[in-house]
Amino acid sequence: MSYRQTVDFLLHDWLAVESLRSRMRFADHSRETFDSVLDTCERIARDKFAPFNRLSDTEEPWFDGEKVHLPKASHEAAEAYFASGMLAAAQDYDLGGMQLPCVVEMAANSFFSKAGIGIGGGGMLTSGNANLLMAHGTSMQREVFAKNEFAGRFTGTMCLSEPQAGSSLSDVATRAVPDGADFASDPLGPRYRLRGNKMWISNGENELAENIVHLVLAKIPGEDGKLVAGTRGISLFIVPKKLVDEAGQLTGERNDVSLAGLNHKLGYRGIPNTLLNFGEGKFPVRGASGAGWDGAGAGAIGYLVGRPGEGLRCMFHMMNEARIAVGLGATMLGYAGYEASLEYAKTRPQGRPIGVGGKDTSRPQVPIIEHADVKRMLLAQKSYCEGALALELYCARLVDELHTGDDEANGAPALPSVAAPRGGAADLGSGPVVGRSRAHLLLEVLTPIAKSWPSEWCLEANSLAIQVLGGYGYTRDFPVEQYWRDNRLNMIHEGTHGIQALDLLGRKVVMDSGAGLDLVRATMAETVARGMAVEALVSHAESLAVASEHLAAATRSAWSTGSPDEALANATPYLQAFGHVVIAWIWLDVAVRVAAAPADAVQRGRLAACRYFFRYELPKINAWLGVVSSRDDTCRTMNEASF
Amino acid sequence: MSYRQTVDFLLHDWLAVESLRSRMRFADHSRETFDSVLDTCERIARDKFAPFNRLSDTEEPWFDGEKVHLPKASHEAAEAYFASGMLAAAQDYDLGGMQLPCVVEMAANSFFSKAGIGIGGGGMLTSGNANLLMAHGTSMQREVFAKNEFAGRFTGTMCLSEPQAGSSLSDVATRAVPDGADFASDPLGPRYRLRGNKMWISNGENELAENIVHLVLAKIPGEDGKLVAGTRGISLFIVPKKLVDEAGQLTGERNDVSLAGLNHKLGYRGIPNTLLNFGEGKFPVRGASGAGWDGAGAGAIGYLVGRPGEGLRCMFHMMNEARIAVGLGATMLGYAGYEASLEYAKTRPQGRPIGVGGKDTSRPQVPIIEHADVKRMLLAQKSYCEGALALELYCARLVDELHTGDDEANGAPALPSVAAPRGGAADLGSGPVVGRSRAHLLLEVLTPIAKSWPSEWCLEANSLAIQVLGGYGYTRDFPVEQYWRDNRLNMIHEGTHGIQALDLLGRKVVMDSGAGLDLVRATMAETVARGMAVEALVSHAESLAVASEHLAAATRSAWSTGSPDEALANATPYLQAFGHVVIAWIWLDVAVRVAAAPADAVQRGRLAACRYFFRYELPKINAWLGVVSSRDDTCRTMNEASF
Repeated sequence: MSYRQTVDFLLHDWLAVESLRSRMRFADHSRETFDSVLDTCERIARDKFAPFNRLSDTEEPWFDGEKVHLPKASHEAAEAYFASGMLAAAQDYDLGGMQLPCVVEMAANSFFSKAGIGIGGGGMLTSGNANLLMAHGTSMQREVFAKNEFAGRFTGTMCLSEPQAGSSLSDVATRAVPDGADFASDPLGPRYRLRGNKMWISNGENELAENIVHLVLAKIPGEDGKLVAGTRGISLFIVPKKLVDEAGQLTGERNDVSLAGLNHKLGYRGIPNTLLNFGEGKFPVRGASGAGWDGAGAGAIGYLVGRPGEGLRCMFHMMNEARIAVGLGATMLGYAGYEASLEYAKTRPQGRPIGVGGKDTSRPQVPIIEHADVKRMLLAQKSYCEGALALELYCARLVDELHTGDDEANGAPALPSVAAPRGGAADLGSGPVVGRSRAHLLLEVLTPIAKSWPSEWCLEANSLAIQVLGGYGYTRDFPVEQYWRDNRLNMIHEGTHGIQALDLLGRKVVMDSGAGLDLVRATMAETVARGMAVEALVSHAESLAVASEHLAAATRSAWSTGSPDEALANATPYLQAFGHVVIAWIWLDVAVRVAAAPADAVQRGRLAACRYFFRYELPKINAWLGVVSSRDDTCRTMNEASF
Repeated sequence: MSYRQTVDFLLHDWLAVESLRSRMRFADHSRETFDSVLDTCERIARDKFAPFNRLSDTEEPWFDGEKVHLPKASHEAAEAYFASGMLAAAQDYDLGGMQLPCVVEMAANSFFSKAGIGIGGGGMLTSGNANLLMAHGTSMQREVFAKNEFAGRFTGTMCLSEPQAGSSLSDVATRAVPDGADFASDPLGPRYRLRGNKMWISNGENELAENIVHLVLAKIPGEDGKLVAGTRGISLFIVPKKLVDEAGQLTGERNDVSLAGLNHKLGYRGIPNTLLNFGEGKFPVRGASGAGWDGAGAGAIGYLVGRPGEGLRCMFHMMNEARIAVGLGATMLGYAGYEASLEYAKTRPQGRPIGVGGKDTSRPQVPIIEHADVKRMLLAQKSYCEGALALELYCARLVDELHTGDDEANGAPALPSVAAPRGGAADLGSGPVVGRSRAHLLLEVLTPIAKSWPSEWCLEANSLAIQVLGGYGYTRDFPVEQYWRDNRLNMIHEGTHGIQALDLLGRKVVMDSGAGLDLVRATMAETVARGMAVEALVSHAESLAVASEHLAAATRSAWSTGSPDEALANATPYLQAFGHVVIAWIWLDVAVRVAAAPADAVQRGRLAACRYFFRYELPKINAWLGVVSSRDDTCRTMNEASF
């Protein structure tokens, strides 16, 4: 079955995306317009991305002291992507957008991630950057910066980490001071001078477009000249690489943002990852000024977004989207490996089945897909990658709910399934319904899973893909080793696994007296109820109910002493278990939908992947939750001298 | 604690290696001679290997059409290694050897694997090759080939795989025909002409020594000119790259072995991996002859080792050693990552502990080793890598038992522990004793674990090391990404994970009515008994007893229908579970020894690693054994069309 068929099934048969047409915003859309967007993206990905995926790995970005060079193919891929209009796909018509639902936008973008995740200019960073400005910028900032990002004239970055403070944003040391007496009256926003270093900035330097819009976290010193400790003091700034006027035209002035170096990575090599210096004086701009600077007045010019001290809140608008995008990227790398290893397994003859009498070596060798262990490795990949894809699309569907759903219960169901009559959204009444605020709450809890689970398990899928190919998989003549290297990034960036785990167990499941966890469990319970009505799925439904109860009990046990260090010492095993329960739930819900359709080979494959997940994977949660429930202190009490 | 301290503890405190002095063969040895070998290897590894590990990755071997080029550092490392005498360390004095116990030899070699697994010419392949000839070759073959390999004049390879038959040795298509009427009277052994292609041959071409001794599996056609199907028809040949005379001197004749290509790998790049053509006519040698060849008489000249049709049995002599060596290599890569990430975690400041009131951001950042989740990642690595190291050394200790133990019960204990009075081997009476034949049986069962478990879990350790370093770990500025890439090979070569699993569940635990499994379990039971006597270890001992019972029950269930395809469909989960039980057993036995010593920080660290394994890891076996016990058919019944 092709990937496209899988996407179509999930979008239409499972998530009933066409029902979104009942929303005013999407009224002009139809199955045909959705299909047409997917067709276009599939074609561009096939023609402009896939053939150059290996090239983007072998021809790493390099810096000649002035410019960063990428292969020609990357420029052409970016051009085609920009021209497709996908950067603005979800935006209003009057911004040049398509008013596409987020779930369709994400499905369309998935083709690019699968074909060449390291090429094409990292479009999702640019649109995420622009989306943030749409939400938090002034109308001028939206017009000058966001609109040009959507149009592909400017690319975007997010600049959070610093060399001395990776995950610890409290320790951001980049300073921003008002730029002269008239700083508050700049039409582009309150104007500041920034000085500091930012690390791990993807696309921090490139020649893919006219300009780069950096979104930079920095601290505005207090009257005593000191930075406020913690994250409260963080503000957000637009720092364009080249200054622009109110019409968005380049003024010809280079801003003081310079490339200090490129990081040489294990994978994801097509995307230049940079260390940037802001305001170090390499490109002095507009003379000087800036009260409070030592040395000659200097600093990169930046425009405040939102209010001082609210930078992190604004940035998290982008981070949450970025985290789902990371999850999707991880998923698609996994899927690419699944496709490659499936193709290999179907065509590579080797060995013979083991019968009761052993192997009959007088018979010809069989394709390796006939060996049970190879089937196991393929089925595991299928269950990881299709399960993860379903979760990412479900989260995107929740984003649509958040943006366009009604505020109360007459919105769309969280998981339309066979139990609900098919048709317009208004008809889908029997599923668990979520309005805007419930979608928000579900997304809050599911985002750490959507980011972390595919990062871990679709990486495992990539390892299994290598294993299916054996020695060939270990060579650079096949793509699977690159997918594995590329995917290893995803447990690290946009908040490491450990950070996601603290977010989940330390915040998301305890906030509002556990309302988020309750809602996730209630939504699962709806799926359980639908599963109980399908004979073939009863045992899975029962397993999910038990797992959900286990999760709740473990959460209570973890926090039963009220001590964060006891509760959170096993946050990562908790995250792993939570993720497995979520994917089991997603699979069961998909299976409920599948069970209502004619049982062809494809549908039987989906049921098998679901069964694989329940039989081989879900039981793993017991080991993870065991240490959570007992608040096992083996790790946290370990002394440095004992390592 | 340094790695050397860990090795010394395992060798002397745990395995009581000094007790081997009571064996005639090792009578000249002492703690001092053992220490001196370790010192030498540690020094050479530090000076000649470690500084060039990255270089061996970036300067891949390349072929100029005639020779394969390696960096100068690789030549120097190989020279130093050859000069150390380690190739012959375990051999008789009169062969230039040191008569070192295998367990000490392996411990000494571990320094090289940790410092630079891809450099130095892959000494263990050469000594493994020579060991095979010592066991199965004629005295002339031993003198001419093995002795020169031990001396570092010749390097060695093993040539099993072919492009059309990787794991499926039945399908070896390389042909060997008698070379002329006098073929049987060659002093170097019955002389044949070989023609065929061999794939994945490590060190198949290099300039590290004067000559290369290929050990090649090939089939001798029957009178009908056909090859015998299956593995029964396989014979083993010595095929030197350059022909030699009876004194081991090069005759000046190049044999018809040519390099068809180098494989470009994900890791292990320092070792050239080759596709070799035998007898394709690129280097025609000694005119011709060879009845039965089509075309001009040709073929590479090879000398039969052992009897026709017994090639695989001979080769497995080398394979079993190679499999333990692979396990050791995987372990040491894991250990290298553990050391690197531990060092980083101690020195990298970032973030603050989470107290009851959250984080106090006015305090300075702490080294990341103070975070519970970082401790978890380090402790997991410690438990994987030290546990695996203990297993590999234990297996090597069994090899010593096999070679020098008495044939019945008065040999050394399988696992000397605190319960046994310390002293000469003769005193170590209370542990589970194994004579030569019992050591053989234990090794048979443990070899697939010794090969597969570190390949999987020390790879996971490498992934955790990357995670500890975060973004830095993903760059090529730190060594951890290379360790991870290097280690990915180990689940593939010398028999894939799937092959090891079939070997374990399909052969090793069922042979002799399950005598091997019974023996492993009885040996574990001895450890359980000793653990029960130490208060702090009682719960672990109980867990191990339950796990051992679970393993036995799952084995019975798997085979209860007598159907290999039902039993073996879940051979890999069985292998994984078996491995975890074995490592838990090893850790418990180590802990029993530790508990008797003063409880300093280092000993507490070992107990913590043991506890980590029992609490966080051992419970994972339930998920794996669940599908084994139920003979879950989800994978094996999956149809190609359903993927």
